[in-house]
Amino acid sequence: MQDAQDIINAAHQMADAARTAILPFFRTAGLAADNKWQSGFDPVTEADRAAERAMRDVLARLRPNDAILGEEYGATPGTSGLTWILDPIDGTRAFLCGAASWGVLIGLSDGGAIRYGLIDQPYTRERFEGGFGRARLLSDAGERPLAVRDVGLAQATLLTTYPEVGTADEAAAFRRVSAQVRLTRYGLDCYAYALLALGQVDLVIEAGLQSYDIAGPLAVVQAAGGIVTDWQGGPAHRGGQVIAAASPDLHRAALALLNAGEAA
Amino acid sequence: MQDAQDIINAAHQMADAARTAILPFFRTAGLAADNKWQSGFDPVTEADRAAERAMRDVLARLRPNDAILGEEYGATPGTSGLTWILDPIDGTRAFLCGAASWGVLIGLSDGGAIRYGLIDQPYTRERFEGGFGRARLLSDAGERPLAVRDVGLAQATLLTTYPEVGTADEAAAFRRVSAQVRLTRYGLDCYAYALLALGQVDLVIEAGLQSYDIAGPLAVVQAAGGIVTDWQGGPAHRGGQVIAAASPDLHRAALALLNAGEAA
Repeated sequence: MQDAQDIINAAHQMADAARTAILPFFRTAGLAADNKWQSGFDPVTEADRAAERAMRDVLARLRPNDAILGEEYGATPGTSGLTWILDPIDGTRAFLCGAASWGVLIGLSDGGAIRYGLIDQPYTRERFEGGFGRARLLSDAGERPLAVRDVGLAQATLLTTYPEVGTADEAAAFRRVSAQVRLTRYGLDCYAYALLALGQVDLVIEAGLQSYDIAGPLAVVQAAGGIVTDWQGGPAHRGGQVIAAASPDLHRAALALLNAGEAA
Repeated sequence: MQDAQDIINAAHQMADAARTAILPFFRTAGLAADNKWQSGFDPVTEADRAAERAMRDVLARLRPNDAILGEEYGATPGTSGLTWILDPIDGTRAFLCGAASWGVLIGLSDGGAIRYGLIDQPYTRERFEGGFGRARLLSDAGERPLAVRDVGLAQATLLTTYPEVGTADEAAAFRRVSAQVRLTRYGLDCYAYALLALGQVDLVIEAGLQSYDIAGPLAVVQAAGGIVTDWQGGPAHRGGQVIAAASPDLHRAALALLNAGEAA
């Protein structure tokens, strides 16, 4: 892509702006949490909105012709054929607990594929970057390459955010995989994909995702050598049921288990 | 206590030594994990052992008359009447996933009560300190006072490490509380107690703990104004079933729910 460097620069400026917007709200007392839906619990903080506005301001200045799809402020059309997919705070529940597994997610779509993405953790100052030949973790400790590891299913570590996963069928499918792996852990939100890209864990399986939940992580995991699809092995960038795996063998084995219930 | 400053200095030197010992092992590739038990999965890393040795070296130099109870190397007698209770890496599973919710736990017992403690997170460089009039978080951002918040049960956030909690009865008791709170999250290990002390969450309920899992967190939570007991309201420093609550009202309400099954 001709303007890859320009895109990369814009993405990092967006992530910087989001950090500045969010951090004053993290771990403050009496954080307000609106209910986006009448039922259920989906906190949206001022931080969420402020961060998306800050990222949109960067794009208005640097790349006004790109389209935007943001969790908080919806779709803004563009003319470049490129769309920025933004989740200002993925993991708002973790954010409300003061736990640093939330992140700022930035993905860039060319209309067909996700070409580039960031998972940024403002509090720990970790930024996971993938695409345009880059696959790295940037932090105060310097730069570290991202690369998945390769272990078998019986040695694998599996992550997801909620033990209930999604519907009852989705939870049952998840448990078929969980029963075969060495270790299952919960509660890491987008940070789970970052740890997969970092070669620390092997599988992330989730359901009920939105496109903005997965665009940034998808770019990072793919750049690190991993595979991200839906539970049928198709494209994952629209969200829904998502599986990220460190290797083709692991992906195949986990998909077979996820879909084993249909044969029963 | 006469030598409080001396004790505090020793604790911080121990935590510093543990950080230095552990961090080279965190997020390395191919981390070895021994199985401590024939069945089940309880990884003990070289980091765990190296950190306890480093802390014991500090005590041998600075406070040779204190007793030690460590997760890895057991009990060492002393003559001062004081016992250091050490868990070099609480949350070894989180450690193996590359997630920074593990911590170095240091507690000091006078034979009756836990008088002082630290929860140290080496990767994020956060140190939660409680006892001898201190209740604070030390980090690269400076010093921040620790203080619990005060919300009702229906507004409370509840944390635990594993969804299964413990036995089937323990899990059922946990779910009675979980059903009444606003939000339940999993997977935070000792960091859950740190977030309670920081006023970000309200309840931590766990089962099957060892004394070294709770000594440090108990000191930190109590110094921040919280309450830590077993599920019957008795002392928690021996481990087992533990509940930490931000307020007496919340503690009372949660205890009633935990024990409601016995009346049924």
